[in-house]
Formats: sequence, C-alpha cells, structure tokens
Amino acid sequence: MDFKGKVIAFDADDTLWQNEINYRKAEREFARAMLPFCKNEEDAVAYLMKVEGRNIPLLGYGSKTFIIALAESAMELSDYKADCHLIKKVMDIGKKTVSPEMELYPHVEQVLQHLGRDHALVLATKGDLRDQQTKIEKSNLARYFSHIEIMSEKHEENYRELLRKLGIAPSQFVMVGNSFKSDIIPVLNIGASAVYIPSEIIWEHEKTEEFEAPNLIKLKSIKELI
Amino acid sequence: MDFKGKVIAFDADDTLWQNEINYRKAEREFARAMLPFCKNEEDAVAYLMKVEGRNIPLLGYGSKTFIIALAESAMELSDYKADCHLIKKVMDIGKKTVSPEMELYPHVEQVLQHLGRDHALVLATKGDLRDQQTKIEKSNLARYFSHIEIMSEKHEENYRELLRKLGIAPSQFVMVGNSFKSDIIPVLNIGASAVYIPSEIIWEHEKTEEFEAPNLIKLKSIKELI
Repeated sequence: MDFKGKVIAFDADDTLWQNEINYRKAEREFARAMLPFCKNEEDAVAYLMKVEGRNIPLLGYGSKTFIIALAESAMELSDYKADCHLIKKVMDIGKKTVSPEMELYPHVEQVLQHLGRDHALVLATKGDLRDQQTKIEKSNLARYFSHIEIMSEKHEENYRELLRKLGIAPSQFVMVGNSFKSDIIPVLNIGASAVYIPSEIIWEHEKTEEFEAPNLIKLKSIKELI
Repeated sequence: MDFKGKVIAFDADDTLWQNEINYRKAEREFARAMLPFCKNEEDAVAYLMKVEGRNIPLLGYGSKTFIIALAESAMELSDYKADCHLIKKVMDIGKKTVSPEMELYPHVEQVLQHLGRDHALVLATKGDLRDQQTKIEKSNLARYFSHIEIMSEKHEENYRELLRKLGIAPSQFVMVGNSFKSDIIPVLNIGASAVYIPSEIIWEHEKTEEFEAPNLIKLKSIKELI
C-alpha cells in the first residue's frame, strides 16, 4: 500500500494503548461478586454484556454506560434481592475503568514520530468524550496529531463527516485500527484504505467477520508501519 | 456590538432549546421517591447536587453522570438500606433525561436563518457526546451550522482550541449563551465577544457572579438578535 500524500488516522483504544484489558478485569471482578446469585462467572459476564448492549443505543459507549450496566445487571441477576453494598461494590468496579493506568503499546511513539515527518496524523477514536480526553491527556500523544476526533460511532457517515472536516477525499485517507468492525469495514466501504492490526482482546460488541480487500493490509504490530 | 464579519457561535441547552426543565422534573421525582429517608424534598435534591458535583471531575457532564448520581444518592441517603426497586426507580427517572421531548425556544429557527445569511454559524455545546448528538438530531437545526463542536468543558483553553479549529482570531468570534460561567466569562477572557441571554432556570453547577463588560451585551430573548 502506498502511503504517499495520505493522511494517516489512528484508532486509540487497543491500537495505541491497552484498554480492553481493564474492562476484562472489571468484568471478572463483577462476576466473582455476583457468584452468590449465578451458576458461574461466565453466566454473570454474559448477562452483563447483554445489559450493556441493550443500553448502547440510548447511552452510547464508555465507562459510564459500563457502570450503569453493572448496577442494572447486579439488580437483575439477583432478582432484585441485592443489597446496596453489593450495588455500590459493582459500580465502584466500573469506576476503575474511567481513568486506568495508561499503558502504550511498544514502539507507538517511535511510529508516530516517524510517520509524522511526511504525513498529517489524525487520532480518530470512538467512545465517551470525557473518557477519551482523559486517556489522550494521560497518553501524552496529542502533540503528534494535527486533528483529534472523538466519535460517538464509527459508521460510514461518521467517516464521511471526518473527511469533510479534514477537507480530503477518501483516496487520501488511511485508517489504522484494531477493530475490523469499526476501523476497517466502514473505511473500505467509503473508498479509503485501512491497516488492520488485531489486538489480543476484542470487545464482544466489536466482533465481526473478517475478509481481505485490495485497500487493506493486515499487520502483526504497529511497529511494522515503519 | 458590531457583528460584521464575525462567526457567531451558539450554546445549545437552554439557549436554543429547553433542557434544565427536564432535570428539574427528574430531581423532584427523585426527591419524592426518597421522602421515606429524608426530612424533605429540598434535602434530597441538595444531596443529589453534592453527589453529582463530586462525580463531575471523573465522569463529566450529562445524563449518564446524572443516572449514576441518582443511584449513589439513593443508596447514601437511605444509609445503604434502599432496596433494588427504589434504586431501579431512581435510575429510570434519570434515563428519561437522555432523550426528552425537544422544545425549541420561540423564534430560534427564524434567528438562525436570518443570521446565517451573513455569518458562519457554529454550535458550541458542553456535555456528553451521545446526549448532545441525540438532541442536535432531534432539533433538526444542524443544517444551520457550518461547524458543530461538542465540548467536555467550556474553559478558556477549550475556546482557544475551538478558534484554532475555525482558523479565526478572538476578535472575529461572538458566543451566544445562557450560562454566564461557561458561555460568557471564558469568552470575554480570551478577548472575544459575548451575548448573554439568561434562561429561566440555571443549573446549580453553572451559577456564578455576573458583571458588565464592553464586549458583552445582555438580551431578554434570542429574538432580539435580529
């Protein structure tokens, strides 16, 4: 793939830094707290996923939607018998995902510095406004990007709107990300290019079928972008 | 004030449409539900405000922060004795603020249409990304704005960043809004102009002392902008 003259956009969570791992830890902690009311931990997590998915259309993504889902799941899984201490406990588990320790993937700064010499770099991340801004600030990476876009969804129309803001055509745009559903498919569908770097953990709600395409390359790690 | 050649930015909640009224209704409903545990409704609302304020630095603004504050307040006000049904009830009260009936203020469309002939219009609103996008869509007003900015805060640095994005100087910017704290003070402090249109209801966390200034005008209703 030829990057010449192209704007390169990066997803953030699980592309530049670890994120899902914090949610996986929180889900496990929730499941253990709910064991008095569940057959096993897997059932508890599966129910939580269902409640979260049910709320996304109304509440959107991010840690606050997660906290609300934890409280609702605890109430529903206990058949409304949980006491306040348990509900507070699961909500506090969720709060820990708001401002977690920030762990950048290896070589991220080196890659951004290198590509930034010849390309305008964009950060295009989906999620909650406050969550994402907190993480971007903690990452200390904002200085590498000429534009930062926090998106409530990553559908085709959201990418079209981003290109309109950047004043470029699809042929001038490359998206780099770990979610085939959010970072790759809609980008290819509008005629732009994509670099897929799968992460070890993928969120239940981001799972989708993968395929190959002419404007798509798949890498093992972000380091290979250099 | 001379608007000639200026970009005019509008706050959204309680400047273009009613918003606080929905939160006031929800707070009253919460207070009534909490009466078994409180001296009176005022105490319940005051406690809720305290919890919300405590969470804003971590969670930001908007309906999800409100829902979480409702649950936490119910638990704390009941000394952790509330049952799940009460907690679910207050969370559901909060959910009604996510996508309320949209009531535009009188003459809003007429004003935007009129000013849009000679000016670039911007929507600059503070709050939760999903909440604000839902309301903007419902309002059917997006077509009047050349740029829409959803901000996690309205501090001086946030307005400076907005002007950088718009590629204009402070002298070319007028902000129209109902919050003296968020729409007026920081805008005047960076050397831009402001139009203050107080709303009937102002949120506890937006209250501040008001003053007069050369670059500031105060109007009774948005209609006077024409």
